[in-house]
Amino acid sequence: MSEKSLSLWKTTKYHHHLKATEEEEIARETAITITVNGDQYATIVCTPNDVYELTLGYLASEGLIRSVDQVENLSIDEAKGFAYADLSIPVSFPKRSERWIGSCCGKSREFYLKQDVNTAKTIMSQANISTKQINQLMMEFDSMAEIFNRTGGVHQAALASGDKVIGSYIDIGRHNALDKLYGYILQNRITLKNKCVLFSGRISSEVVLKVSKIGAGLLVAKSAPTDLALRLADDLQITAVGFARDSNLNVYTHENRVYGDTNQNIHFLGRR
Amino acid sequence: MSEKSLSLWKTTKYHHHLKATEEEEIARETAITITVNGDQYATIVCTPNDVYELTLGYLASEGLIRSVDQVENLSIDEAKGFAYADLSIPVSFPKRSERWIGSCCGKSREFYLKQDVNTAKTIMSQANISTKQINQLMMEFDSMAEIFNRTGGVHQAALASGDKVIGSYIDIGRHNALDKLYGYILQNRITLKNKCVLFSGRISSEVVLKVSKIGAGLLVAKSAPTDLALRLADDLQITAVGFARDSNLNVYTHENRVYGDTNQNIHFLGRR
Repeated sequence: MSEKSLSLWKTTKYHHHLKATEEEEIARETAITITVNGDQYATIVCTPNDVYELTLGYLASEGLIRSVDQVENLSIDEAKGFAYADLSIPVSFPKRSERWIGSCCGKSREFYLKQDVNTAKTIMSQANISTKQINQLMMEFDSMAEIFNRTGGVHQAALASGDKVIGSYIDIGRHNALDKLYGYILQNRITLKNKCVLFSGRISSEVVLKVSKIGAGLLVAKSAPTDLALRLADDLQITAVGFARDSNLNVYTHENRVYGDTNQNIHFLGRR
Repeated sequence: MSEKSLSLWKTTKYHHHLKATEEEEIARETAITITVNGDQYATIVCTPNDVYELTLGYLASEGLIRSVDQVENLSIDEAKGFAYADLSIPVSFPKRSERWIGSCCGKSREFYLKQDVNTAKTIMSQANISTKQINQLMMEFDSMAEIFNRTGGVHQAALASGDKVIGSYIDIGRHNALDKLYGYILQNRITLKNKCVLFSGRISSEVVLKVSKIGAGLLVAKSAPTDLALRLADDLQITAVGFARDSNLNVYTHENRVYGDTNQNIHFLGRR
């Protein structure tokens, strides 16, 4: 639980539609590619501490090892994001999606899977939304979470225009809820311009990648983001809004798409 | 958000260490295997509604389709848990873990991946723990979640004996936190008898499978379970405890490992 797990992010915070800028502490997230006996086995995104234990546990979970005695060597290259495991036993596994080693410049640097480089889209829409609209949408979104309220066990994803929630899906899996929404959008050939995705959970890199594939420029979530998610959102020109609860919300990236009601309030006060 | 998403489960509830039995509403979870042009592509666990949209969105997320026009036919067999997609385009993908079609009798019926049949263990330990011990462990567990409290963005998994937390790991991914703990246990050759796993998140089938692979007989989580997770816990003889917060907790399976302080309370009252 070291500082290695934390990062700082310049955040635009709205409290009752009034704006302030602060440095927020954000959970770090990184991609680790595990090689087994020289071949790439899997790439996982994780919090970048205890990567040694993570790799060991992952190999055991996957059934590749039964005990540490089967691990001849395990070395971690934190800078490159690789874990190299040499096992005393032969293993065979299907070739998986290869890790994308992005160049140091340009958009692709944060992608970790080649398939995402091909399917994630940069969002060009400049449609914007007010903090009041966001809070109203989140109230409507919450009221739809009947099953969640009854069981405490499911995630929710929805599409919304500026003034109403259009489709809302639940699932015990975060990604499934977003995939159901994606399927609904494809099936009904809904255009994403001027739409936003509402999400009940945290903003991880995988959530941002899904929103980018869906093609929405605005993601509003009830919970916290990770730093990798925010760097991706920044690259893909997605406005990431987190902690959207009651009359509060944080805008982490491309804040031009969100505006408070400061002017309106001042105008209103001025007329009194 | 239909009743299809909910299931009832006979639950032993402790409120301030006093016991009551109630039927609780639990989120349903099921395994869906997606075949693409006749071959098994993936098995995902999900809430069993909107499976059509889920499959469509999943195929698009994975980059297999770009539009619905590439889907010639998509049929869902809910009873068997299969989605059959026929695409107008040829696709090639590595052969993945095959779905395990369990027999109708015996323990294996709830497993959905062959690798889990090989690695998940039935837990024989009969070690038990009191509700007071659990609540004290969860207080210690919570106090370790410094990063979580600061960022709201990470999950936590720990190992505990009856009276103290031994190892605690955090990660932005639920499964990673458990894998880190598993790696720690393997690395230090810790015996699991009389130990329990503490977890900050929900009890899904994948969480129960991991606890079973780790080899612990008692799982204590802060949040809600799914029905598939509970059926697995029942089969694997794992005691699943959920909503362990303050002086409350729910015991869902193998409740013999958990005891309240009812007798002590009655004794105490009787002496007054």
